[in-house]
Amino acid sequence: MQAGHEDGSPEALEAGMKKHGISPPLLQQILRLSAFHTYPAPGVLIGAFMVDWALEQLGASPEQKLYSVCETPKCLPDALQVMARCTTGNNRLRVLPIGKFAITLNAPSEGETADAVRVFVDLEKLKKFPVIDAWYANSPAYDKRTMKGQLQDEIFRAGRSILSSERVRVAVTKKKKWQSVTCPCCGETVPDYLIEGDRCGACGSMNYYTRI
Amino acid sequence: MQAGHEDGSPEALEAGMKKHGISPPLLQQILRLSAFHTYPAPGVLIGAFMVDWALEQLGASPEQKLYSVCETPKCLPDALQVMARCTTGNNRLRVLPIGKFAITLNAPSEGETADAVRVFVDLEKLKKFPVIDAWYANSPAYDKRTMKGQLQDEIFRAGRSILSSERVRVAVTKKKKWQSVTCPCCGETVPDYLIEGDRCGACGSMNYYTRI
Repeated sequence: MQAGHEDGSPEALEAGMKKHGISPPLLQQILRLSAFHTYPAPGVLIGAFMVDWALEQLGASPEQKLYSVCETPKCLPDALQVMARCTTGNNRLRVLPIGKFAITLNAPSEGETADAVRVFVDLEKLKKFPVIDAWYANSPAYDKRTMKGQLQDEIFRAGRSILSSERVRVAVTKKKKWQSVTCPCCGETVPDYLIEGDRCGACGSMNYYTRI
Repeated sequence: MQAGHEDGSPEALEAGMKKHGISPPLLQQILRLSAFHTYPAPGVLIGAFMVDWALEQLGASPEQKLYSVCETPKCLPDALQVMARCTTGNNRLRVLPIGKFAITLNAPSEGETADAVRVFVDLEKLKKFPVIDAWYANSPAYDKRTMKGQLQDEIFRAGRSILSSERVRVAVTKKKKWQSVTCPCCGETVPDYLIEGDRCGACGSMNYYTRI
């Protein structure tokens, strides 16, 4: 990392980006994203370039309502949340645990499907960036303790050059209509479409806590 | 909403909070949260009071690493993301589609389980707040077009008084060790634990797009 800056600090992150000429608007977005994620994880930094490029291809304005899919739960969803305003809670982010560093982004559509941009880390292009390649493959050649700074530097050097994109079509999911029903087991109400047979998920397959 | 402020604007939201004496630090958090979510949805406003109370009960500092479960995907996860720094991408937020307005929050634990605080919307207590009650039950008595302002006002008036809490114990999930494997179908790599039989999720059950 940069001399005089604490490893992982916003100042070090900013210095690292300036070294590689990251544009001021993207730099500011990455600082916000890193603060939201609580640290500048490699996955969110790569994600920033992915979302930035997808937004550019869509020609989307910052205020536009967009919908997204993220093909991994690791780090990358946060780039969509902060930069494309598709959040877990506002229902415009769908996370599929496929395990690929890929996203799709689309504008609203009245139809059954929407045309979307898919941006992904291109494994062929990654070969030119050995540290990112080793990190991405979870290879023993990447040592987290000693190579973090190198990895971050290579990510900023690479920018979009490790990415590819394609046009795809995705299904549009409509809001479900629902009624509130009482679970006979716990006596609390849940939406009808979440009942599992004769009980709610908390009394069924999603029971996850015990009272103490 | 307040005269002179556009319905749903940050100014109207702030005025609504000041009317009910919401503390300045919580007010600032709610403004941040509303911006992140892209609008002051009733669910995120109630969520702000839930997370604020859970943090207080845990005695957590703003910088502390916390883990959370959210029992609905609707709105509420965003309060945990913004106020407790448990995000979808940093793996400290688990969303279970149970359909209850409830969260648990806990500090890290070295053991197999962790003691957590569970905060939930208490259906008994809701009876004193007819507009929130009708909205929560998705009842026809709540008309979104005409009653939004009333609902927001009642949420700020209610604050924590519609909530209850309990101490619970939750399982601690450890990070999975993984190796990168190549899907024989698409030729791309994914973590081994995400392979579905002989192919990755994108070539299997999670296929969600067609190229155009």
